[in-house]
Amino acid sequence: MKIAGRPYRTIWLRPDGAIEVIDQARLPHEFVTEVLNSAADCARAIKTMVVRGAPLIGATAAYGVALAMRADASDAALTAAIAMLGATRPTAVNLHWALRRMERALSRLPVSARADAAFVEAAAICDEDVEVCRRIGVHGLACLKAAAATKSAGPLNVLTHCNAGWLATVDWGTALAPIYMAHDAGLGVHVWVDETRPRNQGASLTAYELGAHGVPHTIIADNAGGHLMQHGKVDLCIVGTDRVTRNGDVANKIGTYLKALAAKDNDVPFYVALPSSTIDWQLASGRDIPIEERSADELLQMTGRLANGDIARVAIAAPGSPGANPAFDVTPARLISAFITERGVCAASEEGLKSLFPKESE
Amino acid sequence: MKIAGRPYRTIWLRPDGAIEVIDQARLPHEFVTEVLNSAADCARAIKTMVVRGAPLIGATAAYGVALAMRADASDAALTAAIAMLGATRPTAVNLHWALRRMERALSRLPVSARADAAFVEAAAICDEDVEVCRRIGVHGLACLKAAAATKSAGPLNVLTHCNAGWLATVDWGTALAPIYMAHDAGLGVHVWVDETRPRNQGASLTAYELGAHGVPHTIIADNAGGHLMQHGKVDLCIVGTDRVTRNGDVANKIGTYLKALAAKDNDVPFYVALPSSTIDWQLASGRDIPIEERSADELLQMTGRLANGDIARVAIAAPGSPGANPAFDVTPARLISAFITERGVCAASEEGLKSLFPKESE
Repeated sequence: MKIAGRPYRTIWLRPDGAIEVIDQARLPHEFVTEVLNSAADCARAIKTMVVRGAPLIGATAAYGVALAMRADASDAALTAAIAMLGATRPTAVNLHWALRRMERALSRLPVSARADAAFVEAAAICDEDVEVCRRIGVHGLACLKAAAATKSAGPLNVLTHCNAGWLATVDWGTALAPIYMAHDAGLGVHVWVDETRPRNQGASLTAYELGAHGVPHTIIADNAGGHLMQHGKVDLCIVGTDRVTRNGDVANKIGTYLKALAAKDNDVPFYVALPSSTIDWQLASGRDIPIEERSADELLQMTGRLANGDIARVAIAAPGSPGANPAFDVTPARLISAFITERGVCAASEEGLKSLFPKESE
Repeated sequence: MKIAGRPYRTIWLRPDGAIEVIDQARLPHEFVTEVLNSAADCARAIKTMVVRGAPLIGATAAYGVALAMRADASDAALTAAIAMLGATRPTAVNLHWALRRMERALSRLPVSARADAAFVEAAAICDEDVEVCRRIGVHGLACLKAAAATKSAGPLNVLTHCNAGWLATVDWGTALAPIYMAHDAGLGVHVWVDETRPRNQGASLTAYELGAHGVPHTIIADNAGGHLMQHGKVDLCIVGTDRVTRNGDVANKIGTYLKALAAKDNDVPFYVALPSSTIDWQLASGRDIPIEERSADELLQMTGRLANGDIARVAIAAPGSPGANPAFDVTPARLISAFITERGVCAASEEGLKSLFPKESE
């Protein structure tokens, strides 16, 4: 997608052979890129959240292996690079998937062929992610067009929660891919951006990337979405997901469930956009998903820009009061209008998912 | 209620004849009181939000009239004081009600009797507010006790939104009055405090006053309540209200509607505590309530305490992204389990309200 008119991905190979990424830890206050020259650089970028979002973390780890192979393509160096990169975010499923894929592709090759092959494989991981997101965009665009056809005037108003945009992937994003396609196709679209407390990924990242690409949008408190739906100001909702269970329940950023309830109460379609890699066929229902409890500091303190431009952290709550910070909630399948996947749109149910992914469900 | 073991009201007459209030603009970061020596002092305290909350604003205005009468009890001075105090917050219903009451009580008296009578009337306004809140507490306590009786172990977990506590009134509060009574009676109670974006009245004021009185509580993001209800961690919800329409619809701080939806979806009782003065018998339903749209700055910037103790304002959103900030939403009566009023508990319906307030409804 574009920043100030120039197309970007979140990660790319430079002409000089190094890797370059957008430093997302400094967004939205500053747009800066960072050059990664080694596997250690890639590990640091993942650990310090210079890169974030499951697909982008996987892509960065893959390029980390490639940079390691260029320096030393021995078995020992391959094992060491994978161990170092794998330790950065131990619970990131996509990270470990990407590292296993690199290992399988490289370990059977002669040492002399590994560096070139590693860059080819890392590029393939990136391109495949872009293609999955692009297809989600194409299928989602049909949903947006159908909704727009029922409106007599004004832009299509889409509400989203958290950041499921191109900054979390290599390009396009998941929930935002249909929105970028609609915007680029000239379909008038306006996005209500939930700020997404406590980490504010909506107000910072989603608003940033929509603004940079030129998509009309408005930041709202997470509290406001229900009121907007009651007053006909939301035509549909699209969110991403961290994990979908076999029955169609959806784990996503805390607060998603409340928006789904409001959408149901006001007959507003509620879509979940997902690459099929997030379907967990082993889990029967959302009740089985463990919910990460994160530090209360994320809630009780906030980072922002002072009037002089400096970035500062302030305590915003009553001193001494404790906080609780569950990071995700589960939206039951009954509240979801449909899934938008890279293979098409389906019902939020085991039957729906099986209709598009018959082999994977076995 | 208590702060560090010492009982307080939010406003009181000092032995030297001046008025003293808690400076709520400096909460939760600092506890400071302010002495008000004149009607102009009272007007400034209202305007700068040193005092806030409808009942407390009314009480401060009433004492402002009393201080004016002590300086000059002429008709001209009475008219001038009422005009000055009335201009501080033009849309505050309770403010104008208190000023009309003072005018009625004083204008018929000889000038020499006005100052003493004004202090008596202002004290009566305060005491009546305390008594209304105390009665709400007594009736609400019965609801809490009934809920506690169904629990085999652990404290009663109550979720509240925004600040409907004693800091918004003269003492006790509305939604928090039953909680203070339960706590003081030794019934184990724990409060989930919605931070209440964008102005954070929950994380700052509700958490502050509960903590100061010693009531166990935990601050949560507004996004978290639905998840907690899904997991049985909320036994009941109590919120306050700014206005109740004839059919039982409730206008309250933005986001209340989302919590009521989640309570309904999880069979969690959802109570609204209200003094009968907030019932608007003229409005047929919540659809008729105009919703105030406030400055987006409240959403896009945040005030807090730097590590060095200084209070600072930071910009937290993507630069240049617009925001929208509707301040209230309407919770339909169908989602409300019951109203808790100073006359008892009733159904959230016209019939329910009429059963307790037959004369007022005519």
